Order: sequence, then C-alpha cells, then structure tokens
Amino acid sequence: MHLSEITHPNQLHGLSIRQLQEIARQIREKHLQTVAASGGHLGPGLGVVELTIALYQTLDLDRDKVIWDVGHQAYPHKMLTGRYNRFHTLRQKDGVAGYLKRCESKFDHFGAGHASTSISAGLGMALARDLKGENFKVVSVIGDGALTGGMALEAINHAGHLPKTNMMVVLNDNEMSISPNVGAIPRYLNKIRLSPPVQFLSDNLEEQFKNIPFVGESLTPEMERIKEGMKRLAVPKVGAVIEELGFTYMGPVDGHNLEDLISTFQAAHKISGPVLVHVSTMKGKGYAIAEKDQVGYHAQSPFNLATGKAIPASKPKPPGYSKVFAHTLVKLAENNPKIVGITAAMATGTGLDKLQAKLPNQYIDVGIAEQHAATLAAGLACEGIRPVVAIYSTFLQRGYDQIVHDICIQNLPVFFCLDRAGIVGADGPTHQGMYDIAFLRCLPNMVLMAPKDEAELQQMVVTGIDYTDGPIAMRYPRGNGYGVPLMEEGWEALPIGKGEILRNGDDVLLVGYGSMVYPAMQAAEILSEHGIEATVVNARFAKPLDTDLILPLAKQIGKVVTLEEGCLIGGLGSAVAEALVDNNVLVSLKRLGVPDHLVDHASPDQSKAELGLMPSQIAEQVRESFFSQQPSVVS
Amino acid sequence: MHLSEITHPNQLHGLSIRQLQEIARQIREKHLQTVAASGGHLGPGLGVVELTIALYQTLDLDRDKVIWDVGHQAYPHKMLTGRYNRFHTLRQKDGVAGYLKRCESKFDHFGAGHASTSISAGLGMALARDLKGENFKVVSVIGDGALTGGMALEAINHAGHLPKTNMMVVLNDNEMSISPNVGAIPRYLNKIRLSPPVQFLSDNLEEQFKNIPFVGESLTPEMERIKEGMKRLAVPKVGAVIEELGFTYMGPVDGHNLEDLISTFQAAHKISGPVLVHVSTMKGKGYAIAEKDQVGYHAQSPFNLATGKAIPASKPKPPGYSKVFAHTLVKLAENNPKIVGITAAMATGTGLDKLQAKLPNQYIDVGIAEQHAATLAAGLACEGIRPVVAIYSTFLQRGYDQIVHDICIQNLPVFFCLDRAGIVGADGPTHQGMYDIAFLRCLPNMVLMAPKDEAELQQMVVTGIDYTDGPIAMRYPRGNGYGVPLMEEGWEALPIGKGEILRNGDDVLLVGYGSMVYPAMQAAEILSEHGIEATVVNARFAKPLDTDLILPLAKQIGKVVTLEEGCLIGGLGSAVAEALVDNNVLVSLKRLGVPDHLVDHASPDQSKAELGLMPSQIAEQVRESFFSQQPSVVS
Repeated sequence: MHLSEITHPNQLHGLSIRQLQEIARQIREKHLQTVAASGGHLGPGLGVVELTIALYQTLDLDRDKVIWDVGHQAYPHKMLTGRYNRFHTLRQKDGVAGYLKRCESKFDHFGAGHASTSISAGLGMALARDLKGENFKVVSVIGDGALTGGMALEAINHAGHLPKTNMMVVLNDNEMSISPNVGAIPRYLNKIRLSPPVQFLSDNLEEQFKNIPFVGESLTPEMERIKEGMKRLAVPKVGAVIEELGFTYMGPVDGHNLEDLISTFQAAHKISGPVLVHVSTMKGKGYAIAEKDQVGYHAQSPFNLATGKAIPASKPKPPGYSKVFAHTLVKLAENNPKIVGITAAMATGTGLDKLQAKLPNQYIDVGIAEQHAATLAAGLACEGIRPVVAIYSTFLQRGYDQIVHDICIQNLPVFFCLDRAGIVGADGPTHQGMYDIAFLRCLPNMVLMAPKDEAELQQMVVTGIDYTDGPIAMRYPRGNGYGVPLMEEGWEALPIGKGEILRNGDDVLLVGYGSMVYPAMQAAEILSEHGIEATVVNARFAKPLDTDLILPLAKQIGKVVTLEEGCLIGGLGSAVAEALVDNNVLVSLKRLGVPDHLVDHASPDQSKAELGLMPSQIAEQVRESFFSQQPSVVS
Repeated sequence: MHLSEITHPNQLHGLSIRQLQEIARQIREKHLQTVAASGGHLGPGLGVVELTIALYQTLDLDRDKVIWDVGHQAYPHKMLTGRYNRFHTLRQKDGVAGYLKRCESKFDHFGAGHASTSISAGLGMALARDLKGENFKVVSVIGDGALTGGMALEAINHAGHLPKTNMMVVLNDNEMSISPNVGAIPRYLNKIRLSPPVQFLSDNLEEQFKNIPFVGESLTPEMERIKEGMKRLAVPKVGAVIEELGFTYMGPVDGHNLEDLISTFQAAHKISGPVLVHVSTMKGKGYAIAEKDQVGYHAQSPFNLATGKAIPASKPKPPGYSKVFAHTLVKLAENNPKIVGITAAMATGTGLDKLQAKLPNQYIDVGIAEQHAATLAAGLACEGIRPVVAIYSTFLQRGYDQIVHDICIQNLPVFFCLDRAGIVGADGPTHQGMYDIAFLRCLPNMVLMAPKDEAELQQMVVTGIDYTDGPIAMRYPRGNGYGVPLMEEGWEALPIGKGEILRNGDDVLLVGYGSMVYPAMQAAEILSEHGIEATVVNARFAKPLDTDLILPLAKQIGKVVTLEEGCLIGGLGSAVAEALVDNNVLVSLKRLGVPDHLVDHASPDQSKAELGLMPSQIAEQVRESFFSQQPSVVS
C-alpha cells in the first residue's frame, strides 16, 4: 500500500511492521520534499513518524481522539489523515495549514500552535466522555519542552488526581524544545532516558528483599523505611516522580522502533487511570543533516535536500528586525553589565542566541515559561537590573497576568520586546501578533512603542533601556527591514510619547504606527498623484499617544486615517478615536488595520492585500472615504 | 518587649524562645482583634505566626529579602515590620493594605494578591544579587495551594536547574488553598506531611546497607539498583520529587514549634543552591473556631470574637451576585446534565460550592490553575458539554492566552462568568477587575455581556448557556444586588447583541453597562430635576455592541455619555467611540469609567466617589460637559 492510498488512519490496522516501515519511509520522503520546496517545520515531524504510525495502529480513529501539542510535529498525522495528496500546498494560502485546525479535518481534534495545551484539552475530552457515558480513548502527545510550560504541569496535577479517568499522555522526549531544553524537569527526563528499559519488578523485588538473610528477619527502623520505599526503588529513576503524581509510567521506549512502540501503546491502553508513555525520539530522524543540527533544522525556509543549505534569495535582503534587535542589544549590553536578556525557549527566533554567545552571564533562557519569564524580570528589576524580555507578541499572551499584577501594578521597569507583532504569514492564526496593542494599552503605567524601520528599532532599544520609570514595550514585525542605514554609534533615546511628522499636506492626516508608517508614506505619494496631499505622522508611541502633535493636526486638517498592523478593536486607531472624542475634536476618522476576524495562513503580502493594507489599497480607501462624491465601502 | 515596641524585624534577634512565644501571642491577639473589628483574612495569617517570627530571627532584614506569595498571609509580617501601631486601619481607605505593597514598606519586597508568583520574583532577585556580586539571602514563602499554579512550577523547574544560585523556598503547607487543595501535588505533599521528621541519614544508611550480610557481598542486578537508589530511599517519601527537581529538601517541620523552625531555617541557610523547607502549619492556629472551620474562616467580615459569628448587618441586604449566579446555575444544571461548572480553587467565592453540594458530577475544581481551567473547558466544549467557567475578573488574566488560542481561535462555546468585575473595594489594586472588557473585547468570536441587576444576571446565565455559536463572557460585580424580584421560572435567553431603552429623553443619551446602568438611571433622575431629560440605554452587550440601537439615538440626541465600571482605555466607551467614528456619527461623547491609573483599597463607594461614578457626580459631570456655558474639568 502506498501512502497516497491512505485516506483514513484506520487503514493502518493490520499492516505488517514491514509495511508500516515502508509507510514511514514514504512519510519522511514527502515530508522532506515538501519542506525543502516550500519551507516549514522539519525536525519535529521527522522525529515522530514511527510514534504517529504506531499510535494510530493501536487506535480506532473513528472514535478515539489524539491531541497533538504544538501542531508543528503533526505533519505525519496530516499525511495519514487524508491530506497526503494536498500536502504540497503546505503553509500556502488556501493550502494545508502548518498547524492543526479543527476546521481542516475531523481528525484534528484540537488545534495548537502554542505549547503545553494538549493535556488540558485531552483531560477535558476524557471528562466529557465519562460524563456522557461514552467510551473512547483520549491520547495527548506532548514534547518534553512543552512539559515545562506551567499549564501542562497544572494539567498533570489535575489528571493525576483522577484515578478513574482514563487518558494517555505520550511524552515525545527529544531533549529539545526549539533549542535544547532548560530546567530541572528536562534534566530529570534525560536521566530517565539513560536508564535501562523499565521492568515492572516491584512486587517481585519485594519478595526477593524479604528473602535476604538478616534483612528479612530483624529490621532496624532505617531498614524498615527502606522496605517501605521498595516499590519506588524497584523502578529506580524510571518515572518515580511521574508515578508520585498519580500517573502510571511506561517507558522509556525507543521512538523509532515500531514493534516496541506498538506493544507499549497496546499495553498502555489496558491500564486504568492516567498513564504516561515516555518515548525517546530524535528530532530530524532519518535526515542526517537535520539529526546533526537539531536547532538549525527545527524549521526551514526552502532548502537543497542534498546539501541542507537554504536556497539563496534571488536578491540579497535587508537584515531582519530580530537580527537588528539582537545586534543592538548585544552592543548595549557590552557596555552595560546591568542589561540582561530573557527568552522563553526562543533563543534563535528572537536573536538572543547572539547575546548568549557573546555575554552568557547577561542571558537567561527560562524554557517554555512566559509567565515565569515576566515575573523573573520583575524580580530582576526590583534589584536594579535592566531586564529585556524578548517574546513573540502571540506568546506574550501567556504572561498577561504577570504583566498586569507583577509589573504594571508595581510599576517596575521591565522592557518587553515583542517580536513577530502583526501579520506573521505562513504560521497562521495561532501565531498572528494581533492583540498586543489592545491588551497592553489598557494597563496603567505601560508605555508602548513601535519603530517605523530597523534604524528606529535601534533607537527604541536604546529608549527602552534608558527608560526606568516603569514598564515599556516595543513591538516589531516578523521579517526584514527596509535596508536603511543602521546606526553604529551616537544612539540617543527618543522622547517618550512623542511622534514625528514625516510629510506635510493639507488634505488628510495619516497616522501610522510601526510597520504601517512606510506604507502610509507610500500611500501618501500615490494620493499626491491624485492631487491629494497628506500629512503623515509616525506615531512612534501608542501610549502615551502624542496628542499634542495629533490633535491640532486633526482639527486643522479635519480628516484622519490611522494605520496599524494589529486588531482595530482597542488598538492605535481606537486610541486616536478616544483622544478625539475626549477632547471634543469631532472630525472624520478612518481606522485601518485588522478587523475583528482571524487571519489565516498565507504570505504576509497576501494577508495584507486581503486586509486592504497595501499602499495602493490604502490610498484607494482614503480617496473613497474622503474624496469621492458617493461614499463606498471597501471590504 | 511588647510587640508595639518592634519597629524593625531585626529586633527579634537575640530574643529567647519564651520571649518570641510572647510576641507570637501578641501578634495573634492583635490579628484577631483587628479582623474581628473590621474584617479581613483570618486563617492564613494565624497559621504563619511562628513561621514568620522564626524566619525573621534567622535573617538580617536590612539586607535579606523575604517574598511572600499572596500577601493575605502577611499580617504577622506587617506587624513585625513597623505597622503594628497602624494595624487597626487594615484594609481601610488610606490605612494598612490587606496585601503587600512595595510602596507601603521597604520590607515588602514584592507585592502580591494573586498566587504562585513568589518563587519567580525571588529567583529574579537572587540572580540579580549574583550578577551584582552582592551577598544577601532570598526567601520565597509559598503555600501548598499556590504551588499547583503553573507559574510556580515553571519557577521550580528553572531554579532547580541553577545549583549555584542560593535561594530558599519555604513551603507553607496548610493543606488548603482557600478550599481544600486539589490535585496530585497536594496529595503528594500530604503524604510527606504524614512521614516522620527527616533525618539526614543517607550516607550513614549506605554504610549500614553495605554491612548487611549477603547484601554487602554479591548483589543481584536488582539489588545493585537498590543500592544505586539508596540516597533517595534513605529519605523515603520525604521530598524525593523535590530533590529530583534539583532542590535540597528539608522538613517537614512543625510550623508552630519555634525551636524546630529556627534550627531548620538556620541549617537551611547554610546549604548551597536552591533549598526547600517544608513547614506544616494549621490555618487559623490559636483560634479554635477558625481551626475547626478553615474554609469559613479564611477571610471574614467583622465578627464576634467569642462566638465567631459574623456581626449581622444593621438591615438585611439583598442577595449577592455570586449567590444569585450559583442559585441560577444549579437550577439550570439540574435540568441539563451537560452543564458543568468549573472553578479554579474558588468554590466558595464564586458560589460554585452550591453546585458541588447538589450536583457533584457537574462540578470541577482544578485548583489554582486558571490556564488549565480554560483549556479544560475548551476540551469539554469540543465534546458538546456546556462548560461554565466561573473565575474572578482579575484571575482570568492568568488564562488569557488560553482564551485567545484555545477558545477564541477555535470558536468553542465556553461560557465565562467573571465575578468581582469592576471595583472590588478593600482588596485593592491586585484584585480590581478593571481590564476584562478591554482584554476580551479585542478577541474575535468573543461575546461580552453584563447584567444591570441580579434578575438580568439570571437571564444572562440562561443566555450564556443557550449560546453555542462560540465563546461568551458575562461580567458582574462584587457585592449585593438591588433586591429586585428574582425569576424562578420562565427564563428566556436574551437576544445576542441587543440592548434596551430604559428611559426616554431628548437632551442627552446615557449608555450604561452592567453595574453602571442603575447609577445612570439615578443620574437621569437628578438631571431631570435640572430640566435635562436623558435617554438611558442598558447596553447589555459590549460586544457585539447594539449599534442599531445606539447610533440612531446618538445622531438624534447629539450628546452621548458612556458609563462603565472598568478601564476607559479599550472599554465600553471606547467601543461606542469606535462605532461613532466608524459610522461617521460625529457627536460629543463623554466616557465615564476608570481612568488610566490604579485604584487603591477603600470601600467600593469611596472608590466610586473618587472616580466620580456616584449618581450625583455623574449628573454633575453631564451638566458641566454639555449644559454649562463654560466647560469645566472634573478630576
């Protein structure tokens, strides 16, 4: 049977190990071809090919439910659940999504792009099943990195307390999150990995122990306690912690041996209550280049399969925002030992690996733990350190209460650097950085800024570190800058809450924020061709908003347009609307940005075009709103 | 020495056990008197009197730092750090705060009203200390309930990975959060509590083991493994899990025995790296009535010390919102087995204890774990269950990413019931429910509603359960309703996104939301006395906003006032401003609510008066804004 013939995972039932191995080979082949051609996550999926096949062979997926934590490891799942023939459209507009989506397939039982959610979701389904008196299996697959996320541990704590609720957790232990894992839990798991396979000898051993001369007869109190602890001891180092937390522990099992996997899953299905199967896998398995560089091949842009080298862009691109951010931060940190960069398991993505390489003492990776990252930074700030917390906009949502309760309420000077703010492209809805302006703007003491280009980003890094009156956050987009000259010295902090005028014109006022400033300028040029002259303001700060600059211009010009790469509800446009009405400046305002719906995966430009945020579209909307006889609606 | 003479905790140094016991007695006396007279947290503080005294006797608090998790256990700390003589002002306006506050005392090193933050903050301070080359002790005190919060576990995972970073965690194990604890971790801790006190015999034991005949000579592989595990075994059940996570474990120690506590803390201070001291305490210790009813006496309104009975209100009060909510939910759940109520360790506060008592199978307490609560609900919703998640507005911040990523993006029908939304009074800034409208309104698919009174709350409970198109949230205030008749049958769901007109008038339009609808009505009556006739709209829904109702009225009347008990940035008033500008309805809008600063502890009415939200103040502001010759500013 060829993989292309599998449209339902139950077709795996009854296949021989050899047939399954052939399926595994085909999955890897397609996986590699697809990611090499169009980019995507490489290592995670290659690591779970056998895990997926073995698990699905032991389940009835018309009834049973598998919840994958962080969908980026679910490409094999997608190929086995009817999406093989469309798999070449991966991560492309209207194509197969890079993460799981409930609306894409009935086999995607729970979507995920963020880590650590699968046990909670699975436990919910298991409890629902029991409430309804139904009978199906629930399996949550979670990585060892994701297990350090607090919510996964909250879920373990809850599930371990419910001995009558059957559910299986498959721990996909590849010793990595995106970077090597941090923390005591991964270290403990690693210790387990190195143990011999489990033999469930406890009872047997107790017997043996009793038969030892002297020991079996008169025990000192200490020896009594040894005996008490026998069952724990008998599985030394293997899952003792997990068993203490109420789970039956099975493993570690070789995650690339189909026979072992299948027999272990079959045994685990027979166990009542929560059970954890510990599977040792290797990220990038089967592609030697990825096996050797697991960080580098976590995810890839298009590359040459033979060499593993990225296919060079047709023309050289300007440096990316993350790179400029990291470069600038390292420069500043070299001269200021109080600067400490913090990442939550995203060293390469945020660029903080550069800081780690250069100034390891001024670098902290807390693992997948955004809550802890924020409050750790608060603690550092209490002691006069300048914490710079670099977290993607979408992941910062995980630390929201900590920002409110530990940082804003105490007005502590923590500098948040929100990478991937705005439209992220191929990663889709779970990764869009749409809400940060809205959810941060409402918090007292918070300052919000966004640079118009990579040189202004440098200035804002200086500004964020210079500002010690309270918390401050900078948002910047995914991708490349504009190629403007970078500043290598003479950096000065920007005045807080002050914008700048980039262009003067009497007909309309365009207020751009961050990544929408250049498009606003380009739109102004297009408008000028139509005889409409725009004033363009670079807002720089969404909070405090530069009302001294904006309100007189609004009053004078009478027509205002705001532009932002973020949700319209509560965002920069909303801030301008609030300022206008609060000051009784009753002028026309058009707010451009992301309306109240989810933005699906596509290229960033495709998304922007759909949202009407390309310069020509902006110009068109301004003309239609303010300079046409009959107002029309642009969807 | 009398407690009143202690203005600095270092004055405890050198006092005898007997003197310290006398201080402990005086702390309990003052603690009881104060809470009996004016209300506050009772059990938590009484449980840590000896822990606090012993810890402070072993520290130099001019240098060392103690971080208390959830400040409600810190009343003894407050009395020992210069606030004894002001302690009678506890939780009153301008008096001593009920929680820790950095601005209140230099000994309050980190403020907290939410649980599970102290290890993260303490670790931040410890890392800062080492970076600066300084040398002081950092002690984080955390409860066993708070330890189930994900961020505490994230912090343990990080700290346990840093063997060179000295810090002490004191686990205040009283077997309770506010209610008895939930989960595998508390169960494990309880097992430890029941063990004999630790004797650090590991090395010694290994020696003994070797000397056992047969065992010492030829070991089977299994016995070799026993020997390998000796050190773990030697402290059977005592802290093995904690030691696996990289902490040195000490305890359990009797939390009411000063001598044991002092010697344990002294020993722990000498240990390098992270150390956890496990202290067994009893909530309410020393007040027999509270010892017997630890849930009931967690926090108290004023009560008679002799009988423990609450002092009855001078006149009977209408039922509280939480009570009406719980009553209604139980009624509905009795007839709908798919309804499941979820609380995160707040059974009594939310009223869900009523559901637990009546329908235990339709009730889930997940412990202090709001993240897990939200995604568990998402899992339940996937399977057709109707999850009703009752969480205080302020604590919902903990589950923000889960609401975005697991619920809104997947558009799952989860019903959030946000108790304590708006001004909370004596609990102060950490508990104010100010931001929920703003942080939820920006999320696609989310419906937001708030009832004007307790009867409408009943209708909205029906509405929330009836609505299955996606997530929906209802916010309601702390405290009592208006005494309007409750509906006992014939409940009908409200139409989604529809408000109602409560009063007609041509001069000004008042749009109230939730708890501000009645004050709007009262303000309208006052305005009427001045010849100004207001139309009053009960918005009911902040999202979707009833623009069909509001916009024509706004256009017609020309003057609009919005009223809400929440932050003005991004709130209901902001929604109205957005709707007005988006539809080019250029009329005057005054937004009343909570401006962009923190609201300190005080009585709710005192806070409302300071914010200008009392009916007479509202009327006054409307008159000054719209009906006076010279506009004036009300602060």
